[in-house]
Amino acid sequence: MIKANGGKSLQALVDQKDDLVGYFYNETVAPHYRARTGLTAAFIPPEFTNWRDEQRAWRETAILFDQSHHMPEMLLRGPDAFRLLEKIGINSLANFTTDRAKQLIGCTPRGHVIGDCVVYRLEEETFELISSMPLLNWVHFNAEKGSYNVTIERDDPTPYNPTGRRWFYRFQLEGPNAGKIFQDAVEGGAPEIPFFRTAKVKIGGCEVLVLRHGMAGHLGAELSGPYDEMGKVRSALLAAGEKYGLQQGGTKTYFSTIFEFGWMPYPLPGIYTGEELRDYREWLSDSGWEANAQLGGSFLSDDIEDYYVTPWDLGYGHILKFDHDFIGREALEALPESKRRKKVTLVWNRDDVTKVFSSQLGDGPRYKALDFPVAYYGWPQFDEVSANDGSPVGHSCHCGYSANEGEVLSLAMLDPASAIPGTEVVLTWGEPGGGSRKPHVERHEQFKIRATVAPVPYAQSVQKLKRAAIS
Amino acid sequence: MIKANGGKSLQALVDQKDDLVGYFYNETVAPHYRARTGLTAAFIPPEFTNWRDEQRAWRETAILFDQSHHMPEMLLRGPDAFRLLEKIGINSLANFTTDRAKQLIGCTPRGHVIGDCVVYRLEEETFELISSMPLLNWVHFNAEKGSYNVTIERDDPTPYNPTGRRWFYRFQLEGPNAGKIFQDAVEGGAPEIPFFRTAKVKIGGCEVLVLRHGMAGHLGAELSGPYDEMGKVRSALLAAGEKYGLQQGGTKTYFSTIFEFGWMPYPLPGIYTGEELRDYREWLSDSGWEANAQLGGSFLSDDIEDYYVTPWDLGYGHILKFDHDFIGREALEALPESKRRKKVTLVWNRDDVTKVFSSQLGDGPRYKALDFPVAYYGWPQFDEVSANDGSPVGHSCHCGYSANEGEVLSLAMLDPASAIPGTEVVLTWGEPGGGSRKPHVERHEQFKIRATVAPVPYAQSVQKLKRAAIS
Repeated sequence: MIKANGGKSLQALVDQKDDLVGYFYNETVAPHYRARTGLTAAFIPPEFTNWRDEQRAWRETAILFDQSHHMPEMLLRGPDAFRLLEKIGINSLANFTTDRAKQLIGCTPRGHVIGDCVVYRLEEETFELISSMPLLNWVHFNAEKGSYNVTIERDDPTPYNPTGRRWFYRFQLEGPNAGKIFQDAVEGGAPEIPFFRTAKVKIGGCEVLVLRHGMAGHLGAELSGPYDEMGKVRSALLAAGEKYGLQQGGTKTYFSTIFEFGWMPYPLPGIYTGEELRDYREWLSDSGWEANAQLGGSFLSDDIEDYYVTPWDLGYGHILKFDHDFIGREALEALPESKRRKKVTLVWNRDDVTKVFSSQLGDGPRYKALDFPVAYYGWPQFDEVSANDGSPVGHSCHCGYSANEGEVLSLAMLDPASAIPGTEVVLTWGEPGGGSRKPHVERHEQFKIRATVAPVPYAQSVQKLKRAAIS
Repeated sequence: MIKANGGKSLQALVDQKDDLVGYFYNETVAPHYRARTGLTAAFIPPEFTNWRDEQRAWRETAILFDQSHHMPEMLLRGPDAFRLLEKIGINSLANFTTDRAKQLIGCTPRGHVIGDCVVYRLEEETFELISSMPLLNWVHFNAEKGSYNVTIERDDPTPYNPTGRRWFYRFQLEGPNAGKIFQDAVEGGAPEIPFFRTAKVKIGGCEVLVLRHGMAGHLGAELSGPYDEMGKVRSALLAAGEKYGLQQGGTKTYFSTIFEFGWMPYPLPGIYTGEELRDYREWLSDSGWEANAQLGGSFLSDDIEDYYVTPWDLGYGHILKFDHDFIGREALEALPESKRRKKVTLVWNRDDVTKVFSSQLGDGPRYKALDFPVAYYGWPQFDEVSANDGSPVGHSCHCGYSANEGEVLSLAMLDPASAIPGTEVVLTWGEPGGGSRKPHVERHEQFKIRATVAPVPYAQSVQKLKRAAIS
């Protein structure tokens, strides 16, 4: 299912489909999407307690997420590994020492995003890449086709992994008490670790690689190590966290934090068109990740390029650096300001959200159900967003409910003029024509939902506001 | 976890707990409850397509449910097997030929229900009992302690089964097209099978034991056979069903059909009190099914006997037969008419249901979330039901949403005077004091929901009404 290449090619699939968008809109099932919590349920429960209280723990005390199963990984080694990553990344890798991790964002020659991942520099010539199957495939392809002295090993998500296990366990420790728990859990006390730096520490008698990061404004840590040591490290973290209200987070909570902290995962990779990528499509498989995109939402175009996004659309404008030679640089430099959309949070009108709910009662019309906490059903989701006068101003993507905010939120890409906090917009919820043929989408009617533009990340902005109100 | 007996006893647990209701209300996690679809997710997905369309298929075309994993089974053999079942069952087994199955309902000496199951008479002296762990344990205990020449073998639900598999696969084929699909699937054509009779047929090259039953008014069939033949039989059924709109049903749909057809599964067994059952409690384990009841809902009494139910409360008054000697007979014969509650459907007021939903938005108060399609969170659930003047009139148990009806429905046991269709009652939704400590119940406030009494099964009554309107 997620074989990157070999067999019939993605190009063969593209050639065969007259209506590629229609195919992705109706016929495919994405190998991973965040509403499919059943996919990993054998390894991580959808809920340890209940997702509402788990969401609260993420914001109010601390939470431990298990990331050991759903993300693909790659080990890239060799004297040319760094040169390859620099060629791929639109962001600067200039100060990439072996005590750091970096986000890596890769684009097509035309400047459309393929994906983003986190890269650890484990050793001078050894890099560990985590998540974004399309980006790992793109690195893999470039490694094979370019003149790079590198080797590549891949480790697929557990549900698809032929070994039924992974190289590494991976935990995410988050929340306002995460720092204290980490401090207590590390044998001999935790070292000072600057933001996005890594260190090796001992937890539960095991050596653990830790990456210090933070979402929604507080200290967080990503912890990894050999898969067989997962249990010992988890037990030690849970023991240290008991007095700080640490909870384990299930997949429902894990996949619903993005509405608050604002990361836009897994855009449609911009690889389905253009002669310059024919080689790549011929290398990719017709049964792999890219062949099973699952478009969903009210936006329906007959041109797949209308679903492509640029780094600005995803909020990466500030880390895009023209200080090195990378694939897509010329196109991105040439993109006019007016075509650079902005990432925002949309806060959905509560009365309209309630109307979607109450339409489930009675004889109809019945609007597309808003599942909680993850409401989107496309991978990616593209819902039309319009100004009050009806003119299109962008697309809303990931959407869902935050028990912390008591709101339905979505992450959207809007034209600069509409991306100003406080702007009122209208989102079309549900698919045209009674709904697509995607089997997990029930028959439904469309409905217009009013929404207000807000900053991203939403949670942090609220925290700042609260702090400002107190001081 | 579900070991019936051995080790420390249930009596030891009862002796140890000053507040047994408080223990079951706050501290336990039931080994199986219908909202826990994650428990069987490794074997049956929560949704094959989406539960809303799967619910519709159950009503409008046909659905295939997989019952192979969640129900305990027992094989009871020997010259005294029938005599033992007659002693347990409150219903008549008089005409129990080997081409029949029967529902078996067992009570305590005081006439409180322990559980109900389906029994197949496979051979003259061989009976297969399916579901209700408390009833299987009760049969097991009586077989060991009484003077019965029988042998017993047990086969536990897959998640707890040490073999990781089952003796038999089991499918349920339901819906208005189920009869036609069955006819087409059976090699050589299906025989005429009267209601609740069994037959052996050939499907997909395999011999299949079929029980003809029907829920919600249409022909249905339960199909079983050796576990290894599951795949072949399923494929043949799906192939036969394709032109009739047959869908596979996931656990979300499976566990949400009861609101329409009205079966009340798994009452609290009335076994925790009374000297006459001390032997039984000493036989049962302190870590088994009965030790992990998980009471939930707005009704909270300090007397566990307030949760006991009689056959009338569950709607079994019409099959209770005083034509044989059985455990509980004297008590049941003596129960006055006024203490025989009636099983009804409650149709929840749509505006009040919408208010529970909209309380999830904004700053509160936030009422207990109504999860769709299965809303109950106790095993069993006991919500207080009052008349308009506030006087208590009974309890509401299983509750959830039917996309077919566009209603939130519950199954309730009400005093005869309030059990009249059309009566307006008030249900208290949510637990007192901010909610119990049950980990899967989020912090919440209580809310009063108006409801209307309706017949049970609800779906059938609606169908009859519709038929009446047409003819």
